[in-house]
Amino acid sequence: MSADDPTMSTDDKTVDDQVTAGVLQVARQARAAAQVLAPASREVKDRALWAMADALVAATEAITVANAADLAAGRQAGLSPGLIDRLELTDQRVADSAEALRALAGLDDPVGQVVRGQTLPNGLLVRQTRVPLGVVGMIYEARPNVTVDAVGLALKSGNACVLRGGSAAGRTNQAILQVLRDTLVRQGLPADLVQSVDQWGRSGAVALMRARGLVDVVIPRGGAALIATVVQQATVPVIETGVGNVHIYVDAAADPDMARPILMNAKTQRVGVCNAAETLLVHAGAAPAFLPQALLELAQAGVRLHGDERTAVWAPPGVTIWPATDQDWATEYLALELAVRVVDSLDQAVDHIRRWGSGHTEAIVTNDLAAAQRFTAQVDAAAVMVNASTRFTDGGQLGLGAEIGISTQKLHSRGPMGLTELTTTKWIVIGAGHVRP
Amino acid sequence: MSADDPTMSTDDKTVDDQVTAGVLQVARQARAAAQVLAPASREVKDRALWAMADALVAATEAITVANAADLAAGRQAGLSPGLIDRLELTDQRVADSAEALRALAGLDDPVGQVVRGQTLPNGLLVRQTRVPLGVVGMIYEARPNVTVDAVGLALKSGNACVLRGGSAAGRTNQAILQVLRDTLVRQGLPADLVQSVDQWGRSGAVALMRARGLVDVVIPRGGAALIATVVQQATVPVIETGVGNVHIYVDAAADPDMARPILMNAKTQRVGVCNAAETLLVHAGAAPAFLPQALLELAQAGVRLHGDERTAVWAPPGVTIWPATDQDWATEYLALELAVRVVDSLDQAVDHIRRWGSGHTEAIVTNDLAAAQRFTAQVDAAAVMVNASTRFTDGGQLGLGAEIGISTQKLHSRGPMGLTELTTTKWIVIGAGHVRP
Repeated sequence: MSADDPTMSTDDKTVDDQVTAGVLQVARQARAAAQVLAPASREVKDRALWAMADALVAATEAITVANAADLAAGRQAGLSPGLIDRLELTDQRVADSAEALRALAGLDDPVGQVVRGQTLPNGLLVRQTRVPLGVVGMIYEARPNVTVDAVGLALKSGNACVLRGGSAAGRTNQAILQVLRDTLVRQGLPADLVQSVDQWGRSGAVALMRARGLVDVVIPRGGAALIATVVQQATVPVIETGVGNVHIYVDAAADPDMARPILMNAKTQRVGVCNAAETLLVHAGAAPAFLPQALLELAQAGVRLHGDERTAVWAPPGVTIWPATDQDWATEYLALELAVRVVDSLDQAVDHIRRWGSGHTEAIVTNDLAAAQRFTAQVDAAAVMVNASTRFTDGGQLGLGAEIGISTQKLHSRGPMGLTELTTTKWIVIGAGHVRP
Repeated sequence: MSADDPTMSTDDKTVDDQVTAGVLQVARQARAAAQVLAPASREVKDRALWAMADALVAATEAITVANAADLAAGRQAGLSPGLIDRLELTDQRVADSAEALRALAGLDDPVGQVVRGQTLPNGLLVRQTRVPLGVVGMIYEARPNVTVDAVGLALKSGNACVLRGGSAAGRTNQAILQVLRDTLVRQGLPADLVQSVDQWGRSGAVALMRARGLVDVVIPRGGAALIATVVQQATVPVIETGVGNVHIYVDAAADPDMARPILMNAKTQRVGVCNAAETLLVHAGAAPAFLPQALLELAQAGVRLHGDERTAVWAPPGVTIWPATDQDWATEYLALELAVRVVDSLDQAVDHIRRWGSGHTEAIVTNDLAAAQRFTAQVDAAAVMVNASTRFTDGGQLGLGAEIGISTQKLHSRGPMGLTELTTTKWIVIGAGHVRP
């Protein structure tokens, strides 16, 4: 197919043709900018990251003023406290975003790394080298810090990015992108490495996810509904992120005093994140020693408990267990709520996870090596934890440096996605007149 | 999402609900079978591959008889000689397919390989391990040898496969699958590791590419139309393969006596394959010494030539140059036809390739190191050749062992896809009660 053929993405009549034309123009500009950045040295890219960090800090007031306007509009529109919190940019949060860019500058550049290479028996010199993807589309909800992270990760990995950042953060994102684009120009790089399609609203997002041949990947980051929409409508390759219906299985051979802190950390250290626990599975043999105290601590922490009948048996006085339904097994609460089920075996726990899990993170607490090995082998998820909190599924925590999201799909990238996951490879074959016999 | 929720793929009313139900049942059986195979040792898988090879050879007569019926029907339906040739299975070709399975048994098993691992400062032991994808859907055209290759590659990499093999090869594929399924059972493995949805025709293929949560990847293998259909209609992740609008650029600093054999090999050694050359770009400075003889040899080899005006100038007497149009620059001939254009610079060649290339394979012939470096850096393709035939873009030729296809997309896998490309990874994190501060 031709990389520049706009007809590829206008076959869908539900997308307004003018919006499509506008988005395709943005994508074409991004593609041209990406071709300029691709050969740039790490030094050039790191210098730009440092300059962006300084520029963001210098522009803190302009950014927070724009953010205050978004916040006021958001409160008026009745956004939930959680959403308002994600939307808010304090001076400190701007400084944190700038620091994140400086941290990126300190990471290795994946571009140019040789993945594998050899001289073949016939003398052909073959090497597979990392190269940027090209143009990365990000579709996310109103979280201005994601804007800065996405731009930084894309730049460091040699890619252009096209952002759809959520209307509620429109003023804030515009202020941030203005600062970042101006900095790129001052650094002698194309401003179009960083663009937004927010002015076209939802149909702009749809056009972006259908810009085949111009956009190399679309990464949706947000709730299950957003991700499902992108997966259904996109014709550009998609990397799904983030939906985490996360389980903790407390095995018969678990140490209750190890299991409780892990459970409390996974459920309450930070709610509303995809690696927080949503369902607790307890082996019947572990229930007597573990459940009463665990349920009490959860209740004291303000966690609303949904349990099966065998769980209710172990509820201490004053702790309410709401009857759990299939809906509870299926739900990613992202709140101080937990589903609890007593199972008869590790196999039953694995079956429950296969039935209800989202393939994000699953954990077992046990001192039985065989049980740990069976659980890690049989559970099919991006990350499987043994005697550790599910909250460790995070690019920073796992040593990747930054992350652009956590993939819950199996293709290209699974689990936390760092810089390497924003690259592809190119086979380079050097011969001396070689032909195939 | 729940991995077993059939509603995920029945949202499309164009697919007959009964067909969908049937295909989802097949996919569910495949998933269950894959869970049995996933932990199998290399020894178990290799033994099954050897047994399959022997069983195929033993069943040669039954298979060729079924194939003869498909061939007769195909000829009656007026299939092109090329398609008939791909469809035909001689005793020798059955033996070759069996030998391919034995070769697979000799390759390393990617499953269980540790991609990266470390002990983090906090003492968490982290490793990223290769695991099978799960269920691989293959949608291809009537080529029975692909059936055997796909089954072998899926089995060796620990995956179940669901095949849609093209109606024209229906009887042949059925005979082959019967042999392979019987062998699996004799080896103590589930027959449902290998299934077909051919009985449901095209709507079965559509249901397969929409079985989200049950099928982990769909790999279309065939012409541009087939691949475009899958990309448009699939909701399961897709790996695009094969479309190759392949260019050879003869640089000003090329040795004509090296360039001609490379060109002839790339165009005529085997036509109808995706790594065959379709367009020749010649630097104006190289044209006088290179083009007349090259055009003559091409014409003598029976290649129909479509050229621009500057190419026609160099045509020797008796060699016809048909006027090239944009259609020619865009076409993957897969036949003894070639588009030829004279360009003024390497940059113009790169621009032409960016405009018309399909990102499969591009080649430069030059003795100028700087030119080779600029071409390999600026051309965005799965494989870039310097002074070598484009026909080397092949899993076997590049040292991957077998290949299931050649990816022309950037996600997950780019270029020839071998066993490793049929796996994903799983993070396994071992702690001792670790929680996040």
